[in-house]
Amino acid sequence: MVTPTFTLAVDAMGGDHAPEMVVRGVAIAAERHPEARFLLVGDEEKLKPLLRKLKRAAAACTLRHASEYVSSDLKPTAALRMRGSSMRIAIDAVASGEASGVVSAGNTGALLALAKIVIKTLPGIARPAMAALGPSARGDVVMLDLGANVACDARNLVEFAVMGDMFARTVLGLPAPTIGLLNVGSEELKGDERLRQAAEVLRESHIGPQFHGFVEGHDIAAGTTDVIVTDGFTGNVALKTGEGALRLVGALLRQVFSANLASKLAYILARPGLDRLREWLDPRRYNGAVLLGLNGVVVKSHGGTDAQGFAHAMDVAMDMVVHHFNDRIREGLAKIGTLKSLAPTPPAPARDLSAAS
Amino acid sequence: MVTPTFTLAVDAMGGDHAPEMVVRGVAIAAERHPEARFLLVGDEEKLKPLLRKLKRAAAACTLRHASEYVSSDLKPTAALRMRGSSMRIAIDAVASGEASGVVSAGNTGALLALAKIVIKTLPGIARPAMAALGPSARGDVVMLDLGANVACDARNLVEFAVMGDMFARTVLGLPAPTIGLLNVGSEELKGDERLRQAAEVLRESHIGPQFHGFVEGHDIAAGTTDVIVTDGFTGNVALKTGEGALRLVGALLRQVFSANLASKLAYILARPGLDRLREWLDPRRYNGAVLLGLNGVVVKSHGGTDAQGFAHAMDVAMDMVVHHFNDRIREGLAKIGTLKSLAPTPPAPARDLSAAS
Repeated sequence: MVTPTFTLAVDAMGGDHAPEMVVRGVAIAAERHPEARFLLVGDEEKLKPLLRKLKRAAAACTLRHASEYVSSDLKPTAALRMRGSSMRIAIDAVASGEASGVVSAGNTGALLALAKIVIKTLPGIARPAMAALGPSARGDVVMLDLGANVACDARNLVEFAVMGDMFARTVLGLPAPTIGLLNVGSEELKGDERLRQAAEVLRESHIGPQFHGFVEGHDIAAGTTDVIVTDGFTGNVALKTGEGALRLVGALLRQVFSANLASKLAYILARPGLDRLREWLDPRRYNGAVLLGLNGVVVKSHGGTDAQGFAHAMDVAMDMVVHHFNDRIREGLAKIGTLKSLAPTPPAPARDLSAAS
Repeated sequence: MVTPTFTLAVDAMGGDHAPEMVVRGVAIAAERHPEARFLLVGDEEKLKPLLRKLKRAAAACTLRHASEYVSSDLKPTAALRMRGSSMRIAIDAVASGEASGVVSAGNTGALLALAKIVIKTLPGIARPAMAALGPSARGDVVMLDLGANVACDARNLVEFAVMGDMFARTVLGLPAPTIGLLNVGSEELKGDERLRQAAEVLRESHIGPQFHGFVEGHDIAAGTTDVIVTDGFTGNVALKTGEGALRLVGALLRQVFSANLASKLAYILARPGLDRLREWLDPRRYNGAVLLGLNGVVVKSHGGTDAQGFAHAMDVAMDMVVHHFNDRIREGLAKIGTLKSLAPTPPAPARDLSAAS
C-alpha cells in the first residue's frame, strides 16, 4: 500500500462523453499513479453506479456531489455565477489547498475564467497561457499560448517564453530547451513591433542563450525549437491547422490501403511501422493543455477525448504537481528584471475568456 | 499557328534556382499555352544561352535586358529605389499595359511593395491580399491573406472575402463558393471585435448567402468552406504550419516504407495509390500565390520551386488574365454598399511590406 502524497481534483461532468469517460480515465490513472488520490466532483447519482463497476477508480477516489455542471456552450460570465457546478467545486478544492491540481474536459472559456478568479495568477504573471505538447521531426515540442489570450502584448509573450521554458524542462526533461517566437519570417525585421520588442527582451534575459529568435509555421513540425511562443489566436489556429492536416493525410492513407487487394496486402506488410506512426501521432498522446501562470495546476482535456486521452491529461497534471512546477516558474520570473522596462499590459478584455474552444 | 492574345511578363532572375528554373518553366508553360507571349526580363548574357538550349521557350519569348536583380534579403524600400531590376522592369510592363500580368519567384516583400506602388490597387480596395490554393478533404480551397498584411481590420477582411469569392469562382469554377472567416471557435461571440464586425457586414452583403460564419484551423484541411479568410499573420502561419505537418508525415512514411524488406514490398504494392496521394499533396501543384486587389495580375511563385512549380504559377496567372479576374472583382466590390459603414482603415505601416516570406 502506497501512502497518498497528493490529491488531484477531477471535474467528472465535463466533456462529450462524461461522466463515464472521466471515471474510466480515473481508473487508468489510478493504476499508473498509486501515490495519488482523486477528488471526483459531479452528480452522485450518476457517479456511484460507475464507481461500483470500476473498483480501481473507486478505491482511489473521494466522491463529492455537485448538483450542476457547466455546459459546453455556457458563457464564462454565466459559469462564474454558478457556484455549485462540478467545475467550480473542483477548482475551489485547489484554491483551498485540499487538492494540488484539477483536470477538466469541460468548457475551456469557463475553466479559464474560473481558474483566474478562484485560483488566481502567480505574482508577476499578467495573464495565464495555455500550453500543450505536439509531435515534431525532432521529438515533442511545447507550444503556447493555445487560446487563453486572443490578443497579447510583448510582455505577455516574454512571460509565455519563461513559462514555456519551465514547462519544457519539467515535462520533457530538457536541461536547456530552445525557444522560438512564432512569426511570418525568421529575419529580425519581420512581424510587428510587439514581436520585435519581445525578441529583444528575451535575447537579453536569463533565457537569452536558449532563445533561437523568430521561427515560422513550418518550424513547429520540423522541431526547430523545443518551445514555440505565440499569442493565443495564432497558437489556436496553428494547433488546429496542424491537427487538421494530419487528420486529412490519415483519412487519405486509409483510402489508399483499402483501395484493392494489393494495397490491403501492403497494409498488412507495413502494419508494424504504420501502427507505430499512428500511435506516435495519436492526438490522445498529446491530450492535456496546461493553464500556466496560476497558483495551482490546471489541466484542460480535449472535450471529445476518450478515457485513455483523459488519463493522459491527468498524467500531465500529476507530472506538474510532482515536479513543483509553479515554484520553478516563480524562480524563472524573478530572474527577468528587464521585464519592468516593457510597457504595462492593458487590462484583458472580458471576451478573452471565451476565446479558446 | 495561334495568334497571341496576351503577354505575360516574367521576372527571370527571381528564385533560388533562377534563371535556369524560370526559363525551363516558361518552356513548359509555352507548350501548354500557345496563345500566350512571354516578356522575359533579366540578364541577357545569362538568358541567351538558356534560350538557345530551350527552343520552345525562345519561340514564345521576347527578351528584355535588366542589369540588376532584387536579392532575396533586400529590404522592400531598397527594392523600390532600384529602377533597373528585373522585377521592376517586369512590373513596369504591366503598369504600361504591355503585359497583362507578371510572375516572379523573387523577394515577396519587394514584389508586394513594387506592385502596390507601380501597378496600384483597384479603386475601393484598401490593401491587396495574397491568396493561394491548398488541398482539403473536399477539394481545393482558397486561403487569403497569406502574408501581405500583418495586421488587418474588419474592412480589410471584408474586402478579402469579396476577392476570395471571385478568385474561387475564377480558378475553381464554383458558381457560389462558401466563405469562412478564420477564428478560434465557430460560435458568434468568439474572437475579437474586428472579426465579429467583419462577420456582421459579410452576413448582410451580396455574398451573405455564401458566408458560412467563423471556421477554425481544422476546417482548412476539412474543406468546410471553399474560401478561408484571415489576416496575413495568421494566414501565413497557418499555411506554413499545414505544409510543415504534411512534410513531417511524408518523411515519417518514407521511413516506414524503407524500414525492412516487408515494408519495401508493401510500398511496391501500394505504390499507385501512394503516388497519387503524393501528387495530390505536391506543393508544386499549389504553387502560385496571387496578389489580389491590384490593377493587373501579379503572381508570386515559391522561391524554392522547380520548373514544374514555376510553370504552375504561370498557369494561375494566365487563368486570371483569360477570365478577366480584375473586372469581376470590381463588380463584386461595387455591390458592397455596407462597407462604407465600417471604420476607415488606418494607414498601412511600412513594415507590412516586408511581412511575408
